[in-house]
Amino acid sequence: MNQKYILPDPWSIIEEGFDAEKVKSSESLFSIGNGAMGQRANFEEDYSGETFQGSYVAGVYYPDKTRVGWWKNGYPEYFAKVLNAPNWIGIKVSVNGEDLDLHTCDQVKNFRRELNMKEGYYRRSFQATLQNGTEVMVESTRILHLDQDELGVINYKVTALNKDAEIVFSPYLDGGITNEDSNWDDKFWDTLSVSEADHQGFIRSMTMKTQFHICTYMQSDILVNDSEATPAYTSEKKDQYLQFNYKVNISKGDTATLRKYAGYTVSHHHKPDNLVNAAKDAINAGRTMGYEGLKASQAEAWSSIWEMADITIEGDVEAQQGIRFNIFQLNQTYLGKDARLNIGPKGFTGEKYGGSTYWDTEAYCLPFYMATKDHTVARNLLVYRYNHLQKAIENAEKLGFSNGAALYPMVTMNGEESHNEWEITFEEIHRNGAIAFAIYNYVRYTGDISYVAEKGLEVLIAIARFWQQRATYSTHKNKYVILGVTGPNEYENNVNNNWYTNFTAKWCIEYAASEIDRLKQDAPAEHTRIMEKTRLSADEVTQWLKVSSNMYFPYSEEHNIYLQQDGFLDKELITVADLDRSQRPINQYWSWDRILRSPYIKQADVLQGFYFFEDHFSQEELERHFDFYEPFTVHESSLSPCVHSIQAAKLDRMEQAYTFYLRTSRLDLDDYNKEVEEGCHITSMAGTWLSIVEGFGGMRVRDGHLEFHPRIPKHWDKYAFKVNFRGQILKVTVSRQGNSFELSGSEPLSIKVKGETKTITPSN
Amino acid sequence: MNQKYILPDPWSIIEEGFDAEKVKSSESLFSIGNGAMGQRANFEEDYSGETFQGSYVAGVYYPDKTRVGWWKNGYPEYFAKVLNAPNWIGIKVSVNGEDLDLHTCDQVKNFRRELNMKEGYYRRSFQATLQNGTEVMVESTRILHLDQDELGVINYKVTALNKDAEIVFSPYLDGGITNEDSNWDDKFWDTLSVSEADHQGFIRSMTMKTQFHICTYMQSDILVNDSEATPAYTSEKKDQYLQFNYKVNISKGDTATLRKYAGYTVSHHHKPDNLVNAAKDAINAGRTMGYEGLKASQAEAWSSIWEMADITIEGDVEAQQGIRFNIFQLNQTYLGKDARLNIGPKGFTGEKYGGSTYWDTEAYCLPFYMATKDHTVARNLLVYRYNHLQKAIENAEKLGFSNGAALYPMVTMNGEESHNEWEITFEEIHRNGAIAFAIYNYVRYTGDISYVAEKGLEVLIAIARFWQQRATYSTHKNKYVILGVTGPNEYENNVNNNWYTNFTAKWCIEYAASEIDRLKQDAPAEHTRIMEKTRLSADEVTQWLKVSSNMYFPYSEEHNIYLQQDGFLDKELITVADLDRSQRPINQYWSWDRILRSPYIKQADVLQGFYFFEDHFSQEELERHFDFYEPFTVHESSLSPCVHSIQAAKLDRMEQAYTFYLRTSRLDLDDYNKEVEEGCHITSMAGTWLSIVEGFGGMRVRDGHLEFHPRIPKHWDKYAFKVNFRGQILKVTVSRQGNSFELSGSEPLSIKVKGETKTITPSN
Repeated sequence: MNQKYILPDPWSIIEEGFDAEKVKSSESLFSIGNGAMGQRANFEEDYSGETFQGSYVAGVYYPDKTRVGWWKNGYPEYFAKVLNAPNWIGIKVSVNGEDLDLHTCDQVKNFRRELNMKEGYYRRSFQATLQNGTEVMVESTRILHLDQDELGVINYKVTALNKDAEIVFSPYLDGGITNEDSNWDDKFWDTLSVSEADHQGFIRSMTMKTQFHICTYMQSDILVNDSEATPAYTSEKKDQYLQFNYKVNISKGDTATLRKYAGYTVSHHHKPDNLVNAAKDAINAGRTMGYEGLKASQAEAWSSIWEMADITIEGDVEAQQGIRFNIFQLNQTYLGKDARLNIGPKGFTGEKYGGSTYWDTEAYCLPFYMATKDHTVARNLLVYRYNHLQKAIENAEKLGFSNGAALYPMVTMNGEESHNEWEITFEEIHRNGAIAFAIYNYVRYTGDISYVAEKGLEVLIAIARFWQQRATYSTHKNKYVILGVTGPNEYENNVNNNWYTNFTAKWCIEYAASEIDRLKQDAPAEHTRIMEKTRLSADEVTQWLKVSSNMYFPYSEEHNIYLQQDGFLDKELITVADLDRSQRPINQYWSWDRILRSPYIKQADVLQGFYFFEDHFSQEELERHFDFYEPFTVHESSLSPCVHSIQAAKLDRMEQAYTFYLRTSRLDLDDYNKEVEEGCHITSMAGTWLSIVEGFGGMRVRDGHLEFHPRIPKHWDKYAFKVNFRGQILKVTVSRQGNSFELSGSEPLSIKVKGETKTITPSN
Repeated sequence: MNQKYILPDPWSIIEEGFDAEKVKSSESLFSIGNGAMGQRANFEEDYSGETFQGSYVAGVYYPDKTRVGWWKNGYPEYFAKVLNAPNWIGIKVSVNGEDLDLHTCDQVKNFRRELNMKEGYYRRSFQATLQNGTEVMVESTRILHLDQDELGVINYKVTALNKDAEIVFSPYLDGGITNEDSNWDDKFWDTLSVSEADHQGFIRSMTMKTQFHICTYMQSDILVNDSEATPAYTSEKKDQYLQFNYKVNISKGDTATLRKYAGYTVSHHHKPDNLVNAAKDAINAGRTMGYEGLKASQAEAWSSIWEMADITIEGDVEAQQGIRFNIFQLNQTYLGKDARLNIGPKGFTGEKYGGSTYWDTEAYCLPFYMATKDHTVARNLLVYRYNHLQKAIENAEKLGFSNGAALYPMVTMNGEESHNEWEITFEEIHRNGAIAFAIYNYVRYTGDISYVAEKGLEVLIAIARFWQQRATYSTHKNKYVILGVTGPNEYENNVNNNWYTNFTAKWCIEYAASEIDRLKQDAPAEHTRIMEKTRLSADEVTQWLKVSSNMYFPYSEEHNIYLQQDGFLDKELITVADLDRSQRPINQYWSWDRILRSPYIKQADVLQGFYFFEDHFSQEELERHFDFYEPFTVHESSLSPCVHSIQAAKLDRMEQAYTFYLRTSRLDLDDYNKEVEEGCHITSMAGTWLSIVEGFGGMRVRDGHLEFHPRIPKHWDKYAFKVNFRGQILKVTVSRQGNSFELSGSEPLSIKVKGETKTITPSN
């Protein structure tokens, strides 16, 4: 790992001591969000040291003009990019005439950050001695409210420690923000108005081109020693900026507090010309509840999330902290309220990666949301792709496909492709498979078969069409081959017959065809409607099945394994263990050609297929493939260790599974990849959950029943998780002494544990 | 073809009639150059219509910061880019108070351009009626002098046709130029001074970063009806600009002429602070000879080039015009005087493609210069690479190679890589082979074996080392394989075992090893010196030979051919003939993945190997491979038709050979690729010469003897070319009636014609 400064604690992320070198990392780790907006843990007061400012509004993006060295046909001309939004957290603080700035003050003591995951707030406190000799204690608590998700509140306390002090609080709004990640230094936001009235301030902004409207707003109350004391204020207004100045004189030992109620109202939910009024409503609602009321209701809201989603681990506080951090961040990023939103790879913690949606959503995040929320949340994730189907069809048309074949984008915000490297954009097509598999996985888990006829089958048909057209008949092999792809292992580009891709393609076609058959029997009217809507004939399905039933899979007789792709055995097969440590991570030390011709695997590829499609393979096959491929895997993708943890657990290799678990769960906390300052790896956090529930817990759904195969790492005394299975809540506790299952529900639940059927009776 | 407006003429390129749509194309086609500088055929007077201004100085470049979507280790941070240089051709012309501008004047008649290739000048003439009713006839002749290669002259004549006229000539220099092709809109030039003295003007400029100094200069004389009449002048001076104004009043029917002596003096040849003095010398030399004198000596210089390099074709004026255009452009671009220079793919006709040197130089251009110039010219092309050897070794080190292995850059100006697409920069490594082959080819043709010991062997050793390290031992195949390459056919990327690359690698190693052996026998001192300098041991050579002797070549038993690469037969093998015409060129209509998984070949790949290494293959093998691959070849590289023309001729398929010949020789004149406005394809022009001399003429050198196998297309009555073979000049004439060989030299020459040995006696 790269750095390890976060203090172990079961419920909080804690940093103690001020280190300017860690400011950007901590800004990522202590980020907060509420699904609708979020922000990096930037200081409220001015900070002239190195910082990466970031505040984001879910679903608000800008179509940045694509930049590329050499243009290729089919690249998107524009793509949706996550936007840094106006700043509403800012509070300039002047103490006896000197600006408070941790970069310039004489001394900083007792600096502490806490991200309280249990109650959902971020608190920072410190003592600072200014150059003018005044010593103050500061404590700032920030909440992005889960229920009123356009509202945030900051409780900013300044205590005069060594002398009387004149404190000037200058809360402000700043619409003049820029993006770190911008192709052409375009201006992304147009400020429409800056207005104020009676302690309230508003900046209305609109994104260029996409014309999302937001109103950034604030109102502040001032307290002295807990008594309300809001003084008169002056204001400073610029083109894109508004600041109020509140002057308070306090005596030595007294505390002045500013409570800033602020946030964004957004045109997703309001008419553009009603945004200021909506902001006034939000302020009023916030001030009515007050800071304490908001904090209490926030704790309640998080309590109900934790009630369902928490995983407890006894005997290993770092593992406990890790899994809670992952669950917390996932819930901060996406709560499933809005089918227009999705789970960005950096959430609200940074700007890296344009767009918000990768195959990560379907491949890693969906099971977490299925099991820890009402099934409408997972359904919304599927509907998101259904709503993008037409754009996926247009995307495929740009690449020469026809007849309603769809290629979902590699990266997207609004259904359009946001990536432009040919080897990824055009070739990493396995993503289509994950989108089809998610429908299967959702129906398997939730039993909500109605989704298939209602929406899912159209997606399955469009994807099956893509695979049928994308395969090439090789007269030479007398089989269908899939040429020129990049598999999940992105350390191979433009390979032929990537086993994972070929298997996925075959599976997608067969699943689509079987669902068509099923509907024909079970819901002939729906079947007719969909066949007509998609202009699908039985003949065409026959063509699909010709491809799927004659798909080629590269295989090694010698090793008795499927080959990751054609020609894999021609590589120099030196395992990672024999690779000089100084060469790793290879993506930092090797040129791309060297990576490509090496055997090293960035993330699970064949094993990813064994994970998705486990019922197609025996334990022995899994073991052979794990033993062959894992030694070549460098896990330089955040998505790799979790799958390996699950597979190692399945093979009863608990020590290895535990090592992979730690790597995935503390990836950001311990900054394994030396990049946490750019933001956290949100989507891979769902993989951490998987590695406990599906890995250690061995949870599967087969034939409509939950199955478990509980195992426990030797470092742990006990762990427990809950899953929402078709409206009933099952709590699974695994300990050295044995396992227990506790059910809250209306009727008994029949499950299998290590192959044995058990019926669990509701305990409530 | 795209457009066909150039009038057929054996010695000139002629356009008649003014068409604003064709201005940019003609600016490319009528470009002039003298090896040291060159420029597009921009108008001297102002033109407010669409134009692409370009003036270039050989060897002057700027290290533009690399721009790329996703950075890969090993990409160059900067790369050398051809620069648009200050403009010295400009002459503003005012007629009775109105600016002459073909875009705004009332009428243009009798517009004509002529690029006189025989005498080496560019002339443009027209009649224009201005908005003020004045009608003038203009004739402008421009020369870039071959012998005094820092000097140009423009003879600009204005005749008043319908009334008396006040003509104001305002010749100017403009240092404030920009590049069409710039990554960051950097300023490339710094203007150091603008000065004038007694009709002379100078702008001193320096390139940013590279600090090349040039002085752009001018002096003009005015004539009225051929009498000198230089009037007093006024001047206008700006930061980067200098203009003189000469006012002349002429009567109806009279002609006013401005003769502008101008050009660049360059720090390649002068100390920076002596550039203005050098410019004064150039002006004086030019004015002493005068325009007529310069024009006459230019004609003489071209006459001596043509004397040796001309190819005559009787009975087919378009073919004649095509070959002369190609020979003319090659000589305008590179004359071999300076080993720091090379042959840019656009010469002095445009900016596309950063850097100046591709494998085109070795693979296509070298034979032309070997046969039509003194052998020092070809030798300079080899020395250019020798001088870049250390940088090629550093380039390989960036990619993980060691021990003096060299990878020459894909594109370069100064030895550093100027390209950054991983599939090209890192993988199109066959370029190394062309550089080794050029040494073999040069020695084979010229007999100048001394070059090997003196310089060549060090290059061969570094290249052999690269291949040995780049090959991978496949335990699976029990052979050495070369993984992850792009062959000459750039419509395949990151393939394994590209046959051409593997064969080239084997050949390079064996050639290097055999030259080491030869030296050991023939020149033991040299051998010892080189072995020590390169720290090469006999053991290491044994390691090389292990690779070369166990190289894997993909082969199809079924088709009895070598496969272009592993897996080629898995493609859907639909020939170009069966490909919908509307889909071509595929690079304009298809996405990159579709191109890659198609069987379509951009340019000769296996057949390129059969061309270089023809002695290793039988005629039958050539025929089988030609018949297999040519039907899949789309020839979307300018370098493809020439090789196919040669191979078709060798197979006695003269009609096909002729079609390929026309396509290569008139590629730009008829704008086959719809892009001539960006500049001409200079390097492929050498391929045109090859297709006559090596294709139709069947010229080869074997065992130190010239061999011919003359053939003639049915469209031609006769053709003739000359080659300089080891100091003797052999003229070969091929006609329907028979062939003749005429020798100017000191002793008889023994040649083979269609396998029969003949001895040719000198006729002089």
